[in-house]
Amino acid sequence: MKKTLNVGLIGYNFMGRAHTHGLKNLYMMADDLQVTPRLHTICGRNEGEVERVAGKLGWEKWSTSWESVVDDPEIDIIDIASPGNTHCEIAVAAAQKGKHILCEKPLATTLGEAEQMLAAVESGGAMHLVNFNYRRVPAVMLAKRLIEEGRLGAIISFKGFYQQDWTLDDELPFIWRFDKAVAGAGSMADKGSHIIDLARYLIGEFEEVSAAMEIFVKERPIAGGGQKRVVTTDDAAVFTARFACGALGVFETNRMSSGRKNGLWFEVNGTEGSVRFELERLNELQVYSRRDPEDCQGFRQVLVTQASHPYIRYWWPPGHLIGWEHTFTHQFYELFRAIETGQLPSPNFRDGLVCQKVIEAINQAAVEKRWVTIDR
Amino acid sequence: MKKTLNVGLIGYNFMGRAHTHGLKNLYMMADDLQVTPRLHTICGRNEGEVERVAGKLGWEKWSTSWESVVDDPEIDIIDIASPGNTHCEIAVAAAQKGKHILCEKPLATTLGEAEQMLAAVESGGAMHLVNFNYRRVPAVMLAKRLIEEGRLGAIISFKGFYQQDWTLDDELPFIWRFDKAVAGAGSMADKGSHIIDLARYLIGEFEEVSAAMEIFVKERPIAGGGQKRVVTTDDAAVFTARFACGALGVFETNRMSSGRKNGLWFEVNGTEGSVRFELERLNELQVYSRRDPEDCQGFRQVLVTQASHPYIRYWWPPGHLIGWEHTFTHQFYELFRAIETGQLPSPNFRDGLVCQKVIEAINQAAVEKRWVTIDR
Amino acid sequence: MKKTLNVGLIGYNFMGRAHTHGLKNLYMMADDLQVTPRLHTICGRNEGEVERVAGKLGWEKWSTSWESVVDDPEIDIIDIASPGNTHCEIAVAAAQKGKHILCEKPLATTLGEAEQMLAAVESGGAMHLVNFNYRRVPAVMLAKRLIEEGRLGAIISFKGFYQQDWTLDDELPFIWRFDKAVAGAGSMADKGSHIIDLARYLIGEFEEVSAAMEIFVKERPIAGGGQKRVVTTDDAAVFTARFACGALGVFETNRMSSGRKNGLWFEVNGTEGSVRFELERLNELQVYSRRDPEDCQGFRQVLVTQASHPYIRYWWPPGHLIGWEHTFTHQFYELFRAIETGQLPSPNFRDGLVCQKVIEAINQAAVEKRWVTIDR
Amino acid sequence: MKKTLNVGLIGYNFMGRAHTHGLKNLYMMADDLQVTPRLHTICGRNEGEVERVAGKLGWEKWSTSWESVVDDPEIDIIDIASPGNTHCEIAVAAAQKGKHILCEKPLATTLGEAEQMLAAVESGGAMHLVNFNYRRVPAVMLAKRLIEEGRLGAIISFKGFYQQDWTLDDELPFIWRFDKAVAGAGSMADKGSHIIDLARYLIGEFEEVSAAMEIFVKERPIAGGGQKRVVTTDDAAVFTARFACGALGVFETNRMSSGRKNGLWFEVNGTEGSVRFELERLNELQVYSRRDPEDCQGFRQVLVTQASHPYIRYWWPPGHLIGWEHTFTHQFYELFRAIETGQLPSPNFRDGLVCQKVIEAINQAAVEKRWVTIDR
Repeated sequence: MKKTLNVGLIGYNFMGRAHTHGLKNLYMMADDLQVTPRLHTICGRNEGEVERVAGKLGWEKWSTSWESVVDDPEIDIIDIASPGNTHCEIAVAAAQKGKHILCEKPLATTLGEAEQMLAAVESGGAMHLVNFNYRRVPAVMLAKRLIEEGRLGAIISFKGFYQQDWTLDDELPFIWRFDKAVAGAGSMADKGSHIIDLARYLIGEFEEVSAAMEIFVKERPIAGGGQKRVVTTDDAAVFTARFACGALGVFETNRMSSGRKNGLWFEVNGTEGSVRFELERLNELQVYSRRDPEDCQGFRQVLVTQASHPYIRYWWPPGHLIGWEHTFTHQFYELFRAIETGQLPSPNFRDGLVCQKVIEAINQAAVEKRWVTIDR
Repeated sequence: MKKTLNVGLIGYNFMGRAHTHGLKNLYMMADDLQVTPRLHTICGRNEGEVERVAGKLGWEKWSTSWESVVDDPEIDIIDIASPGNTHCEIAVAAAQKGKHILCEKPLATTLGEAEQMLAAVESGGAMHLVNFNYRRVPAVMLAKRLIEEGRLGAIISFKGFYQQDWTLDDELPFIWRFDKAVAGAGSMADKGSHIIDLARYLIGEFEEVSAAMEIFVKERPIAGGGQKRVVTTDDAAVFTARFACGALGVFETNRMSSGRKNGLWFEVNGTEGSVRFELERLNELQVYSRRDPEDCQGFRQVLVTQASHPYIRYWWPPGHLIGWEHTFTHQFYELFRAIETGQLPSPNFRDGLVCQKVIEAINQAAVEKRWVTIDR
Repeated sequence: MKKTLNVGLIGYNFMGRAHTHGLKNLYMMADDLQVTPRLHTICGRNEGEVERVAGKLGWEKWSTSWESVVDDPEIDIIDIASPGNTHCEIAVAAAQKGKHILCEKPLATTLGEAEQMLAAVESGGAMHLVNFNYRRVPAVMLAKRLIEEGRLGAIISFKGFYQQDWTLDDELPFIWRFDKAVAGAGSMADKGSHIIDLARYLIGEFEEVSAAMEIFVKERPIAGGGQKRVVTTDDAAVFTARFACGALGVFETNRMSSGRKNGLWFEVNGTEGSVRFELERLNELQVYSRRDPEDCQGFRQVLVTQASHPYIRYWWPPGHLIGWEHTFTHQFYELFRAIETGQLPSPNFRDGLVCQKVIEAINQAAVEKRWVTIDR
Repeated sequence: MKKTLNVGLIGYNFMGRAHTHGLKNLYMMADDLQVTPRLHTICGRNEGEVERVAGKLGWEKWSTSWESVVDDPEIDIIDIASPGNTHCEIAVAAAQKGKHILCEKPLATTLGEAEQMLAAVESGGAMHLVNFNYRRVPAVMLAKRLIEEGRLGAIISFKGFYQQDWTLDDELPFIWRFDKAVAGAGSMADKGSHIIDLARYLIGEFEEVSAAMEIFVKERPIAGGGQKRVVTTDDAAVFTARFACGALGVFETNRMSSGRKNGLWFEVNGTEGSVRFELERLNELQVYSRRDPEDCQGFRQVLVTQASHPYIRYWWPPGHLIGWEHTFTHQFYELFRAIETGQLPSPNFRDGLVCQKVIEAINQAAVEKRWVTIDR
């Protein structure tokens, strides 16, 4: 009989639904797990809404108080899928109760918060994971494998982009994401944290950065009224980097890129080969190898659905695509395995903290118009 | 309170897992359903195995007797995911009990069986659906919408292919799929039935066909022994067609296509535009419109993940891919809606029967080396 | 000092311009040729027009009599770029004069003509080449190399298509290409001859064929008048084949394919690998190899611009594309090398004749609605 | 009778061959030109080699003294295709003689030289053109048209890359391009000048830049000897920019990018649409328009070979690709038209000078590790 781990989920909107879906489908990976999740309590601020969602998604209980969820002795895991400015308080409280924690990205809105959170979980002694879920795309993990095995040689360059188009409309009303006080940052941190984390995952630490940010739509209408409010978070950012391994990097985050819906993509060039990845074709990895026969070298379109590819054996036969949502199931798998084995999973709060340091350096570089070294 | 419908699933291997997954995720579409599924009983021949799978997948009961499942008065829906030569007997029995039926494709192994099955469900009065699940890919449904709305004009040509590579290895042992007596047919019917159905769905009925089939690996080793056994099902088939709408068609099915894993793809050319689809990139539809500005015409790579696209509003925001498995959830949605509304879903057993007629005509055309008209 | 070969070109429209361009750029390949072309005489029916074109394109003389060009003792090579129904008479006359001949494709409008032409050149003793210029695309030659070296294994399937869209407009006036008496055939022979030749070049001889043809626009307006005239050449054809090597083949030719401008493309599947080619991306070959590392197999996009690739060393460094027109220069190179060495080039009139046999078999198969064996 | 313009070409290697090819094929565009080129004299330092090349390429005379070519009163146009550190002296001398000048890019090796050259041609009064030939790719010109017509809306972001892989091999011997004293700069200026020019052409002036450069292979073997020599030019550079129009920009130049042969590519995002271009697919432009029907938006793959596309009517019918070399013919067309009309062509020496200013600012930004404003 497998041991049941009770989950308390804070947040019930888009991320709440995605986390729930990830949990509910963890049964597909059950053969390699001794523990099994129970959807114990879901928590949100709007009572009617959280009750409705609990029913639809299959949570046993619901609550409007995250404190009571964190305090509930039955609950083993706190899953934080609420807005960024709530992460620190919840995580610290959960850590103090010795709960395992899965926290959405970016870990915090300031470096101070991130440091506080890491200290809390290290003191609490339980497992912690930051939900940089794109590390859990099989194609991204294949890229990691190729790099680790030396199949790309020494890394020369990393290009990372995260482009969306949802703020293009001038008439899109002001929401919390346009308010720096609440959101912490705009596209640079919200989207940038994903590509910063992927760059770290794939080729290692950032050494120094330079950056520029821009707000293209300066003010936005307040919903339901004739007035406008000033936007204080960036619509787009560009930054360049040097990495500890010697590679150069170029990055862009942009929520006003016509035609890109969830356009995270990257390219890594090494002395022996290159890889390219696009999240909008997440089952594929483009691979170039200089070790191929000279007359047949070219970027290969590898369909990452073979049983030999990461995680795929839990799903379907070759050629049967998985979706974006599977990354959540894979994250829970990593957390549950960590709980079983007592080995800290990756990316954990330390990764979240380092990512935050890079974000702050980018911010500073943009403001001071100079290169800034990341303090590690 | 939603009404519960109890499901009995016959089959627990690959298809059984895919059906279960589809059912378990139907909650995502719950807002538009008054009924909800209950995983009542799963059925298979190997007692230990079916028990294990029932536990893993979350079925309440298990059985090794499909008859007892069909007879169980608690069960509302019989889901047939067992090999083709078992479909007829199970479906006829279930229809006689008035059960709703979802049956895997191809519907039957012979035309006679298919006719018997259609008669049974029409007499039984319940709902029936054939699992040509690729009709339920949002991109395929978008293609259908464009054609129905006249946005491609009059249809000139349909090209349909289903290429895989799993039988390339000579040393792959003999399995039931290589035995015509059990499998009914090879790639032509197994894979071909999908593209025949898609062609019918998209541009209408077949008028006449010509064909050739080939067995490339003539015999295969018997597992565990030194002997070989003669293969009697085709590895590949090519066929051409005329459609009732006047269009021409070319088709290939092939399980020895190096590099294609689940390579179903089609192209439809009309007088006003064209579409292309590849199952290995199932979130995309390529669309060409002659109504675009003259200097900017070209095949568009449409990412079919907008809320306005079929089924997408039940899933994730734009740019967040869905996987192969979602087609099963969509099929169950159609069946459940049909049960609610009393309107026969599509594709139903009549579609399964017509597909069988096309398959038989292709067979005959290949044997007699001449064009054969489909009897409709 | 290199020997000069005087060329007489029959035809001055599109093909005449393309042939001239090919000749004028042969200097790029001069390092490996002992002979050099001289643009001696261009010939056409419209006196004013041919004079104008001669001046623009750089021909020393012009004529309105092909007979006088063929008779001119100064001329070494007759280049036939005039409509199909003129090929036979000109070629036979030129052969009788012992001239080397480059003849546009398809070689003839009937099998009888093709046989007569082959007999004439074999009796004449000079060199002869049919302008199936797509054999001379470096990417196509790379495909050929891979097949010959066994890098695709045994060939299982060939798919060949030639799709254009220039006859989609109903109001396009009647021209000679719509008249079977003049054009010989429609898309099946005009476009089909190219893919038939490529199939033969790449995987060998056709064994038998089945086919259907269709005229979608039944009549077209006569230019300058209110009347319409009946179209007698096919807009589209589909055909299937068995090859001597055992492979199956599917083909389509279509001049009403929305979105395809010069859409010749093919795919070859072998037991060890596959290749794909599109003329609209003629500098690329897609290559799949089952010999790649198991976790990195995929279709490679090979940019066929390396010095090691066929013909490329005569042009530019890696990554610098060549165009469609270069195939003509390459054809002249082959003819000139043949003249130097006395070795018959490929594809020669014998290839033109075999292609014609396949075309006639396709015609017969379509009319008789049965498979027809190619007489070889 | 058309007026003949005598050309003197300085340089006979790769660029000399490309320029010659461009000139020789200008006859294709002759219908719109009143002047016609004559290949008068080619000039190079190695006597035997320049004589050989003159014979092969069809130049009437050859010389080893560029001064004598510039002084030759018969010569109307000086075409400078020699290394960068020779441009200034030759161009100034030619300008003083009142010759029209086509000069390879980058215009000069220092800003001072570029200023001197611009002053000289402005004083000389003849036409001048810098060979940023990628402005003359039809697909690039189509992008320009879309932007100018407002079809992309306000520009948000420009991404430009120029990646090659020719210096990956550590054993590649030291050549002049690795010596800053001779080459002026590495990939940043050599390759970067092309993308800087394209960015200016497409979206306007640079406002400020930040940058980093790197030499990955620190020293290289001296050919024929056992010794090594220190490399002083960058292998790769990354830079970011703000444009006068408000857009952000990210750039990379890299000659150590595995898999990219001549990998210039860019993406422009505007509020109404986006375009993408790759030089390795130079006949295509990817176009996204937010004005497309909502359910069919996507990047279109526009094959830029329609008669309505820039320059195409001089070449072949739709779907027939042109090559890299055609950009040279187009440049000569622009120069010759300019000579006919007396209107300065684009990009001229002023463009060359502004590009040089951006290059120097990038250099300074990299050295001083801060953003640098471009002096305009």
